[in-house]
Amino acid sequence: METNNAERSQKLNRVALGLEYDGTSYNGWQIQDHAPSIQGSLNQSVSKVADEVVNCVGAGRTDTGVHASGQVIHFDTHADRQPRSWLLGINSDLATDINVLWAKAVRPDFHARYSASGRTYRYVILNRPVRSALARSRAWWVRQALDLTAMSIAASKLLGKHDFSSFRASGCQSKTAVREIRRFEVKRVGDWIIFECEANAFLQHMVRNMVGSLVGIGRGDSQPEWISVLLGERDRRAAGITAPPMGLTLTHVEYPPEFGIGEL
Amino acid sequence: METNNAERSQKLNRVALGLEYDGTSYNGWQIQDHAPSIQGSLNQSVSKVADEVVNCVGAGRTDTGVHASGQVIHFDTHADRQPRSWLLGINSDLATDINVLWAKAVRPDFHARYSASGRTYRYVILNRPVRSALARSRAWWVRQALDLTAMSIAASKLLGKHDFSSFRASGCQSKTAVREIRRFEVKRVGDWIIFECEANAFLQHMVRNMVGSLVGIGRGDSQPEWISVLLGERDRRAAGITAPPMGLTLTHVEYPPEFGIGEL
Repeated sequence: METNNAERSQKLNRVALGLEYDGTSYNGWQIQDHAPSIQGSLNQSVSKVADEVVNCVGAGRTDTGVHASGQVIHFDTHADRQPRSWLLGINSDLATDINVLWAKAVRPDFHARYSASGRTYRYVILNRPVRSALARSRAWWVRQALDLTAMSIAASKLLGKHDFSSFRASGCQSKTAVREIRRFEVKRVGDWIIFECEANAFLQHMVRNMVGSLVGIGRGDSQPEWISVLLGERDRRAAGITAPPMGLTLTHVEYPPEFGIGEL
Repeated sequence: METNNAERSQKLNRVALGLEYDGTSYNGWQIQDHAPSIQGSLNQSVSKVADEVVNCVGAGRTDTGVHASGQVIHFDTHADRQPRSWLLGINSDLATDINVLWAKAVRPDFHARYSASGRTYRYVILNRPVRSALARSRAWWVRQALDLTAMSIAASKLLGKHDFSSFRASGCQSKTAVREIRRFEVKRVGDWIIFECEANAFLQHMVRNMVGSLVGIGRGDSQPEWISVLLGERDRRAAGITAPPMGLTLTHVEYPPEFGIGEL
């Protein structure tokens, strides 16, 4: 590595990275003292390449076992490097279950989390009678046949701006539970059921709690209208189970065009 | 488990299983003394459910790191069980990276390997400039843009009955190197390139050696016609590299209709 040849500047440079990871072996995005985290691994690799201690800020704080194909992060550094050097240097240091997809120098007012105007998550269910070795860490295996139409109708009732208290984790620290869901699609591809959900932002466990309740409807435990009742209750205890983490992937983070992230 | 309640018969019952596995953590199909193998794990679980020592015979001897979504095996046992009992009992004992897809009582002259009339393998390449954490154990990452047309033309030249000595591993123990390729398709789906190859049978490393040479052609190192020259040489040293194992999956094994395997 050419760490010591890096140019250094007096002022801080802000760099954004696109990130993919398999969350199976990590206790989520957020750095922790005694457990492996994506942020912890990334901070180490970026710090090595920057030759100074660097802290990465992520757009979405994914939970234990949750994956990403389009996470976005930023960090500040005195090191002056070309985007391609960041990408190659960081990837050569990271374990193979995390990788940088792109790197870009960004404006100092760009913030991976606070500048984000939207996030998209995908949730995948394997809906067949027998389990799958090849999908075991990428999909939730649901044995019973699920009613796609009922789940689609229910998902559409969650569209728009609502108080999502019924679908937030008990430990969720957001000040408000109001979020706006802009798109919530449910489709079947062979044995797979794929949920795509886009919102301005999400509460902790929100996608997994919504999917858990939708699966209850898909199984026929409740009618699609039940989801509207739940939403109105604003009480987590009213909703269904939390879908397990391995089916969930953060696929995209949206930013206003002035930051130039979408041009990559 | 209801192992001890199983009915037992004097005569041996032959049972066939459909099998899926993630080969990442195994030294291939074949049982070995000091390394984990699919056959070794499966023998253990089937023996537990059968309550006697059972040996499983597989249709295809997949290598270290190679996967299966449609492996077929058979075993003989004195235990009398319903197909569903075999399936549930064995799956509840197996690690999550191997699973039974179906079970069926078969004729005593059915043999998973010798009765098979065809095998299909899929090979997956991720063809993009950066590596992928999520695909790392399921696809071969090839950075350089590959020419799909050139690879398709070359693959079509391998169709039919040939002596495949140029594409067999040096340790391959088959008496003859003559095999018949019935289908060899190459397609691109986004960043993915997927090879589907069906033959009566395959030599050791044959698919990986053919894909390695096709990728050389896709990179422009050689013209598609080179594959015919290679085939004529009947010499492994003439061919290209061996594609790595993680991109390969045994997807289907074909049997004559009288065995009733396809009806499942």
